[in-house]
Amino acid sequence: MDELKARILSEGKVLPGSIIKVGSFLNHKVDTALMGRMADEFAKHFDISKISLILTIEASGIALASVCSYKWGIPLLFAKKAKSDNIENGLFCSEIYSYTYKKTVKVMVESEHLKSTDHVLIMDDFLANGEAIRGLTDLVHEAGATLEGIGIAIEKGFQGGGDKFRKKGIDIYSLAIIEEADDGSIRFRD
Amino acid sequence: MDELKARILSEGKVLPGSIIKVGSFLNHKVDTALMGRMADEFAKHFDISKISLILTIEASGIALASVCSYKWGIPLLFAKKAKSDNIENGLFCSEIYSYTYKKTVKVMVESEHLKSTDHVLIMDDFLANGEAIRGLTDLVHEAGATLEGIGIAIEKGFQGGGDKFRKKGIDIYSLAIIEEADDGSIRFRD
Repeated sequence: MDELKARILSEGKVLPGSIIKVGSFLNHKVDTALMGRMADEFAKHFDISKISLILTIEASGIALASVCSYKWGIPLLFAKKAKSDNIENGLFCSEIYSYTYKKTVKVMVESEHLKSTDHVLIMDDFLANGEAIRGLTDLVHEAGATLEGIGIAIEKGFQGGGDKFRKKGIDIYSLAIIEEADDGSIRFRD
Repeated sequence: MDELKARILSEGKVLPGSIIKVGSFLNHKVDTALMGRMADEFAKHFDISKISLILTIEASGIALASVCSYKWGIPLLFAKKAKSDNIENGLFCSEIYSYTYKKTVKVMVESEHLKSTDHVLIMDDFLANGEAIRGLTDLVHEAGATLEGIGIAIEKGFQGGGDKFRKKGIDIYSLAIIEEADDGSIRFRD
């Protein structure tokens, strides 16, 4: 998506460790108008009429997934990252390693909200090593639901997470795939 | 807002400790169509044309704030709850006590995204003791920005957080104020 790539180039910052900072429009301050146009892009690739549930993970995935959910009229479910007092029912649960926080984190959804009859589109703002998304696919499989695809705003292609899902035949679509990010320069996959 | 109150009565569950669970439509599974109508309700109360920034806090406030941001064409900023590697710049920071997680938590925004010229509407899905919202008002004051108001989906009136802000003359508007919640029964403030 050209508009997203242009925003990454003009506003993104590359930090040591190939961390790409896009907090001015994607995952801290959020340009929800851009997200509306991102929803339109996803809808060109995925058959939205098939989707019964959008699944994302807290926290920063919620903004993009909420705008898509609102535009498409499809409910949203966001997985939680740690057990809080407010979760009481049966859970679908997986464990992921968070490279951001350098620890293993539980991801979970209450089982009553993810049904075997659901056709699920997983969405997130970022995909790097793919741990968070792998955790979400675990939840979909645990529920016996159908995974229709994975929609990502920015994929860090050089970290290989997205290609792991492609090799499994999963329909993963990223609006911008960054192939190289160092010394402040960013190159996209063709 | 009658529709929201009806959903709370039909789907909400009261847990021990007057915890009100509305994870079927507000803060786990999310009915973003309802949130669009909630945005319309907020727009009857607040003068949206005055607002330059919506401020919320991760995680569950992001869904409601994103839909409002998208509908109103106003950017969104969500405060983060702990320092992660991806935050590098100057920060506005406050500390709050999280009753959900029973610990003190830092809330922060990068200072470049919250300007002294901003007119801020703080939004969240829930208000109980008001700690999270107090933390957000701290950030607004630290930035020298103007607080235009506070919009809340569900206020637990019996915990007093909302009334503390009202006494200070802050324009706080909650779409449903729960006055009593015990033994499975819920009563709203008139």
